[in-house]
Amino acid sequence: MSKAKKKELPIILITNDDGVTAPGIIALTEAMIGLGKIVVVAPDKPQSAMGHAITIGQPLRLSKVKGVEGAETYSCSGTPVDCVKLAVDKVLHRKPDICISGINHGANHSINVIYSGTMSAALEASIESIPSIGFSLMDYSIEADFTAAKKIARQLVEFILNGKTLDKHLCLNVNIPAIEEKLIKGIKVCKQAYAKYDEKFDERKDPHGRRYFWLTGIFQNFDKAKDTDVWALKHNYVSVVPVQFDLTNYELKKKLEKNWTL
Amino acid sequence: MSKAKKKELPIILITNDDGVTAPGIIALTEAMIGLGKIVVVAPDKPQSAMGHAITIGQPLRLSKVKGVEGAETYSCSGTPVDCVKLAVDKVLHRKPDICISGINHGANHSINVIYSGTMSAALEASIESIPSIGFSLMDYSIEADFTAAKKIARQLVEFILNGKTLDKHLCLNVNIPAIEEKLIKGIKVCKQAYAKYDEKFDERKDPHGRRYFWLTGIFQNFDKAKDTDVWALKHNYVSVVPVQFDLTNYELKKKLEKNWTL
Repeated sequence: MSKAKKKELPIILITNDDGVTAPGIIALTEAMIGLGKIVVVAPDKPQSAMGHAITIGQPLRLSKVKGVEGAETYSCSGTPVDCVKLAVDKVLHRKPDICISGINHGANHSINVIYSGTMSAALEASIESIPSIGFSLMDYSIEADFTAAKKIARQLVEFILNGKTLDKHLCLNVNIPAIEEKLIKGIKVCKQAYAKYDEKFDERKDPHGRRYFWLTGIFQNFDKAKDTDVWALKHNYVSVVPVQFDLTNYELKKKLEKNWTL
Repeated sequence: MSKAKKKELPIILITNDDGVTAPGIIALTEAMIGLGKIVVVAPDKPQSAMGHAITIGQPLRLSKVKGVEGAETYSCSGTPVDCVKLAVDKVLHRKPDICISGINHGANHSINVIYSGTMSAALEASIESIPSIGFSLMDYSIEADFTAAKKIARQLVEFILNGKTLDKHLCLNVNIPAIEEKLIKGIKVCKQAYAKYDEKFDERKDPHGRRYFWLTGIFQNFDKAKDTDVWALKHNYVSVVPVQFDLTNYELKKKLEKNWTL
């Protein structure tokens, strides 16, 4: 590598929603060592299912903490999306070359992309024209084995850093099945399945006799297509869904323009 | 109206992100009187910019409170999305015929749809195949004039309740300019503009000398198209963006399938 190139090490920003001390973000950081300057800015507490929430009503705190050797690590009091915004403005003072989020403890396929703090952080980066990838391993356990996920993460980050720009708002939602590495059949580019939780609230009474409710649910796949993330994961593939932030329903837009009677 | 029809009054679920006592949700509820059975389930405190966050780590509370005469009103300790989920499962015990959210104090056009609790509640309903509309008035003031917004909301809800099903996941993002009713030129079906805040954090020190950060930003429109919500609002139209929850970037999916070298 030439001296000139050494000066231009890519900056890799890492965040997550399970918090700065989660095994998943430590695994992801370890997997990036040697690929560039690595900066971690992640929530100081679990922020799962925070979606695209941002903090507007109160101030944010940022503290330098000890993380993985070779990475600069900060703990932030805000949401995953806050972490990305704050990292760009107050830690990096520029846009990183890539922003990666995870490795999430648990799946973020199908509709979960909308609730996921991990994926919302990645999407936030892509809104800012920073290429981004969110990684999730289909294993909620604190002792999950990230060996295969780490290899896949490194491979994908290298692919994006070295490749041509496929989209200035590139954002990938990567889910990894929780199986032995040798059983993974490959990587499939997919669409988001229409699959979601059939939700029920567990109704209980507190010691004072007042009702409270806990969210529970059973996962259901309504999507029979074979190019979905749910299909790929079920068949032992890593799923990669390219994600975008333009929520316009263009088909319905056309229909409404024709049917509008107001 | 026949007796049979009287029994089948549509159920209108109302929520918001500014909280159950906000003038905007009171205006929206008043505007619906006479159109069906009206049930309000809204956050017990402001939940702006909560995006699609849901509460999974703690229980939710629900209390019946006094609201607008003619509407059943509940206050919920959760996010706007929690309110929709809890209303369907524990208050209505069925899906409502429509779910409306707002009237938000402030605009939710362009990228704001992703951060907005108001729009996330509407989107949550559409995920559950409940037609939904989110309403926002471009006036943050607590004393905003909702006169025109109320008429438009009633007109649109009647259009959806009486009309044919245009999409089983119908969700509309409606923004209303903060101008006199007679100056509103009409309603325009639009796409979401690529326009967003150029964000900076205001850095301050607390009384103990520790740094903290407040989010600030300047709104910038990068989208020169004339069929965007930002264009419509600037030209005194009500903007209606049909919104969807499939975040798949199909164009990038095709490109990746061609370029994939892993």
